[in-house]
Amino acid sequence: MASLRPIDYADAAPEVRAVYDDIKRTRRIEDVNNFWKYLAHDPLTLKRTWESIKEVMVPGALDAVTKEMVYLAVSVTNGCAYCIASHGAAARKAGMSDAMFGELMAVVGMANETNRLANGYRVPIDPAFDK
Amino acid sequence: MASLRPIDYADAAPEVRAVYDDIKRTRRIEDVNNFWKYLAHDPLTLKRTWESIKEVMVPGALDAVTKEMVYLAVSVTNGCAYCIASHGAAARKAGMSDAMFGELMAVVGMANETNRLANGYRVPIDPAFDK
Amino acid sequence: MASLRPIDYADAAPEVRAVYDDIKRTRRIEDVNNFWKYLAHDPLTLKRTWESIKEVMVPGALDAVTKEMVYLAVSVTNGCAYCIASHGAAARKAGMSDAMFGELMAVVGMANETNRLANGYRVPIDPAFDK
Amino acid sequence: MASLRPIDYADAAPEVRAVYDDIKRTRRIEDVNNFWKYLAHDPLTLKRTWESIKEVMVPGALDAVTKEMVYLAVSVTNGCAYCIASHGAAARKAGMSDAMFGELMAVVGMANETNRLANGYRVPIDPAFDK
Amino acid sequence: MASLRPIDYADAAPEVRAVYDDIKRTRRIEDVNNFWKYLAHDPLTLKRTWESIKEVMVPGALDAVTKEMVYLAVSVTNGCAYCIASHGAAARKAGMSDAMFGELMAVVGMANETNRLANGYRVPIDPAFDK
Amino acid sequence: MASLRPIDYADAAPEVRAVYDDIKRTRRIEDVNNFWKYLAHDPLTLKRTWESIKEVMVPGALDAVTKEMVYLAVSVTNGCAYCIASHGAAARKAGMSDAMFGELMAVVGMANETNRLANGYRVPIDPAFDK
Repeated sequence: MASLRPIDYADAAPEVRAVYDDIKRTRRIEDVNNFWKYLAHDPLTLKRTWESIKEVMVPGALDAVTKEMVYLAVSVTNGCAYCIASHGAAARKAGMSDAMFGELMAVVGMANETNRLANGYRVPIDPAFDK
Repeated sequence: MASLRPIDYADAAPEVRAVYDDIKRTRRIEDVNNFWKYLAHDPLTLKRTWESIKEVMVPGALDAVTKEMVYLAVSVTNGCAYCIASHGAAARKAGMSDAMFGELMAVVGMANETNRLANGYRVPIDPAFDK
Repeated sequence: MASLRPIDYADAAPEVRAVYDDIKRTRRIEDVNNFWKYLAHDPLTLKRTWESIKEVMVPGALDAVTKEMVYLAVSVTNGCAYCIASHGAAARKAGMSDAMFGELMAVVGMANETNRLANGYRVPIDPAFDK
Repeated sequence: MASLRPIDYADAAPEVRAVYDDIKRTRRIEDVNNFWKYLAHDPLTLKRTWESIKEVMVPGALDAVTKEMVYLAVSVTNGCAYCIASHGAAARKAGMSDAMFGELMAVVGMANETNRLANGYRVPIDPAFDK
Repeated sequence: MASLRPIDYADAAPEVRAVYDDIKRTRRIEDVNNFWKYLAHDPLTLKRTWESIKEVMVPGALDAVTKEMVYLAVSVTNGCAYCIASHGAAARKAGMSDAMFGELMAVVGMANETNRLANGYRVPIDPAFDK
Repeated sequence: MASLRPIDYADAAPEVRAVYDDIKRTRRIEDVNNFWKYLAHDPLTLKRTWESIKEVMVPGALDAVTKEMVYLAVSVTNGCAYCIASHGAAARKAGMSDAMFGELMAVVGMANETNRLANGYRVPIDPAFDK
């Protein structure tokens, strides 16, 4: 089996181009990332994923940089190399400074550590947290 | 083997009490959570973990509620029931509203989904992210 | 420490060759994948793993392509790059079409998302599921 | 912080009721699962998640029982107790027999094992898988 | 769907009883754990899993307590509550002291933390590790 | 966003150099690994992580090679490529033989498999493990 190839705008079907156009317009960028060029092999998933991302990542009760940092925190926890690179870049673009990145990684590291300490010591949930 | 029992203040050794006292003073609470009462079986890990948490969770480039929400995002991704309960409570206490919680979960969900789409489609990292 | 090197047929001990031969015969292939050439450093694990795989992956109540797609779904969830590549190829060989791959990834993505939503909202199991 | 409470139909806002109604109609069930009654705290996420699930889980190139078994395989890999219970039930309802369940678990187990063997032996991807 | 019920010795088929007998003889115990009583729903998986465990857990280059501690470390990392309980008990039985447990958890915690720091900082592998 | 660059000794600030010096002295090595050269972007995290690692990895109730093998087991389970390479090397240096490595991987593989079997069969914890 060959691995998939990215689908560039020039070769894309109309419904794929429509999504690419919306991504470029929304994010004010000249071309879409590889992520979208691979998802384009399944236009339905491409469209649904983009529309979900657009809805979820719009600033609301949480601002853009917080959302991107949370995205990065999850990606680091899961060890997804592509997502760490792409959402690291997105978080920087949204305003994450070096100091913010450093503190973010420190929290992510501690959370991953204490998650396992809680598991290993079989700590029962305090009644106060279940009221 | 019996599962461990929590170590209450009254039964704690002096070096454990010293950590409990510092937690209670720093967080302005009357008693420490189960997490600490179980870690107390290993006073060295108790002390190191608390001092690390204290250093990492102090507001800095990221404020307290952002740090607690990131902690919660990692705990949800890992499925640590204890940590979801305790850091959910801590995030609420630090100011996370219902709307912030809803958006946080939405981002955590999408990140976990797209991490796997990136894995499954074997998306190569865009050169722009590696400059 | 040097990383391990693959053990080719020509250099393999008799008990390793016997496993290689069985893999090649069973799968009707000319050479075994890197996975087996590395496991060959531990002939006991090589033999046990191959015999388990052979027993588990034989068509039964589930057919071959379904089993390979489930294997791929797990590998994508865990982010194992080698297994995504090898079981993606195996699933294709067993009959997974582009459309089946697209739908598989969509389900894997949604499951990873909703697993975390269920964690984060701390949803209790419905009594109907425990009857 | 109190943990969340499920939102029953009688107490639900109109936009939540509309989703509940569509779930009940689509799945021909009398009431929705706890998962939806908790997501209802965020009507936007409730609606988006349901519409995504509805689109993804409809039989297509993969039939309903295959999709539910993949969902279960992912949930078992992630250790999401709620999702294991709910999608185990859904897979049964869609036609998963005892024998199919047994083989599914065997594949999920082996995949989780060999994913780590591939990691631990640092097996490089065969050139044939990247052509 | 009902959740599965454990299969006790009195109700077990001959091939299941044969495995139960071998477990009891090998481990010098009077009854098998729930794990085996549930796997018994699939006698083939029961037999294969037991024979693999028996082969893998026998003392060799690593002694029994080291193997059980590694099993526990993995189970804690994955957050498998059943396995943490059962292999915690097994490790104790094999000789794990309170001090050994404490140090084990400390290592597991640090490894989970630094795994994410390495991910998040995108640290490239040192050439010395690939020689 | 550019990815980070390693910070070499010559370019390091005094507080970073102090940590590098302590690592080199403690481990009797001539230069520190990339892990530390990247963490150096956040001197506070560099210092805290090193001091924690130094405290945790010192031989105590568990010897050095056991601790490194547990570190490797966790890293393999999480699929952290950098940590598998670096702690694989460290375990070898501390005395892990080929046979020990083989048995370690076999245990890690089985644990990852049976963790999911326990999840999937929804095995309840035996009362004996909770006494």
